[in-house]
Amino acid sequence: MKIGVLGTGVVGNTIGSALIRAGHEVRMGSRSATNEKAAQWVAQNGSAASQGSFADAAAFGEVIFNCTKGEGSLEALGQAGENNLAGKVVVDISNPLDFSKGMPPSLFVGNTDSLAEQIQKAFPQSRVVKTLNIVTTAVMVDAGLSAPGEKGTMFISGNEEEARQFVTEQFLKPWGWDDVIDLGDLTGARAMEMILPLWVRVYMQTQNPMFSWKIVRGK
Amino acid sequence: MKIGVLGTGVVGNTIGSALIRAGHEVRMGSRSATNEKAAQWVAQNGSAASQGSFADAAAFGEVIFNCTKGEGSLEALGQAGENNLAGKVVVDISNPLDFSKGMPPSLFVGNTDSLAEQIQKAFPQSRVVKTLNIVTTAVMVDAGLSAPGEKGTMFISGNEEEARQFVTEQFLKPWGWDDVIDLGDLTGARAMEMILPLWVRVYMQTQNPMFSWKIVRGK
Repeated sequence: MKIGVLGTGVVGNTIGSALIRAGHEVRMGSRSATNEKAAQWVAQNGSAASQGSFADAAAFGEVIFNCTKGEGSLEALGQAGENNLAGKVVVDISNPLDFSKGMPPSLFVGNTDSLAEQIQKAFPQSRVVKTLNIVTTAVMVDAGLSAPGEKGTMFISGNEEEARQFVTEQFLKPWGWDDVIDLGDLTGARAMEMILPLWVRVYMQTQNPMFSWKIVRGK
Repeated sequence: MKIGVLGTGVVGNTIGSALIRAGHEVRMGSRSATNEKAAQWVAQNGSAASQGSFADAAAFGEVIFNCTKGEGSLEALGQAGENNLAGKVVVDISNPLDFSKGMPPSLFVGNTDSLAEQIQKAFPQSRVVKTLNIVTTAVMVDAGLSAPGEKGTMFISGNEEEARQFVTEQFLKPWGWDDVIDLGDLTGARAMEMILPLWVRVYMQTQNPMFSWKIVRGK
């Protein structure tokens, strides 16, 4: 599949490489079509990897991964272009973290709204699916990394059941997420984004980012 | 130990009975000293159980459990009386859920403040410890109930380390919480209260309230 990955940070880099390893063609997008970090990533990932502007990557992809920082996501997607997102699944991994007052961060949207819903509202023809935002990047693409022999639960939300199932089958299961709880429509993203403050606190107290969340329950 | 339990609902009832089983003396407090639900609970729990007003229960207890609904917690604690709370550990189990717009509920405080911090601010001489609010009542007092052979993680926060350790040793461990992550000061309650929306969504999708949260990580 052809996939556009927006963002050149550790999330975009890790997701992009995992998609290449899974056999996809990936174009990494950034503000500049000649971004240096994207060029390094392309050099390390072979002929299936390419780079371009946000618009180039979005036009290239049949599916788009939003791996930009939450505070810049709406602007980056705006540069990607509404037409280039229309009709496409946009996997939103971003988090609305506000670091402006130091650590731990607060959220710049929450409770009765979410960043994923803001993205869906701004680009109504896109098919936004929220997932993966609740673990550190390395664990996103390898659910088994958080502990030997044990995996956490992943959550997913989005307004179209077909899009949620597509993302679950194409990406979550191959990356090891055997236990996926489908939260239904995109208002579920409120809940998924609101556990980030606890992620940050657990990380600050344990000094270990390599953890996942397991919903412990009977079968 | 003498313990005051504020609230006659399922949380107060379950916590009160578990405390009696553990050998404590418990006085259940409510708006009325002759509350019928409290009278039933006393009748079922033997001579170590008694009832009274919020102020009676708070005066009786060396430790106080706030088991009232979040929307009524500040008022109930006000009736309990600042003097009756002074110097005492107040275990706050409440959640700031706002059901006024239907299901799922939103939070009436969050992000940069929490209900636990509002309680601490209103009763500055009390020693507020937030814990147990993240699971259904039956699991609070029996961590093993969520699944056979597997337990979740419990979190705790409060401004005094000594109070957090006291609650962990006296209550959390006896109730089966072997994995407790100490989040530090009471600002951690923001994160603990903000995962309730995900609790509600998981419950709505799975129709199973008997679950806990496990932080899956290496040792």
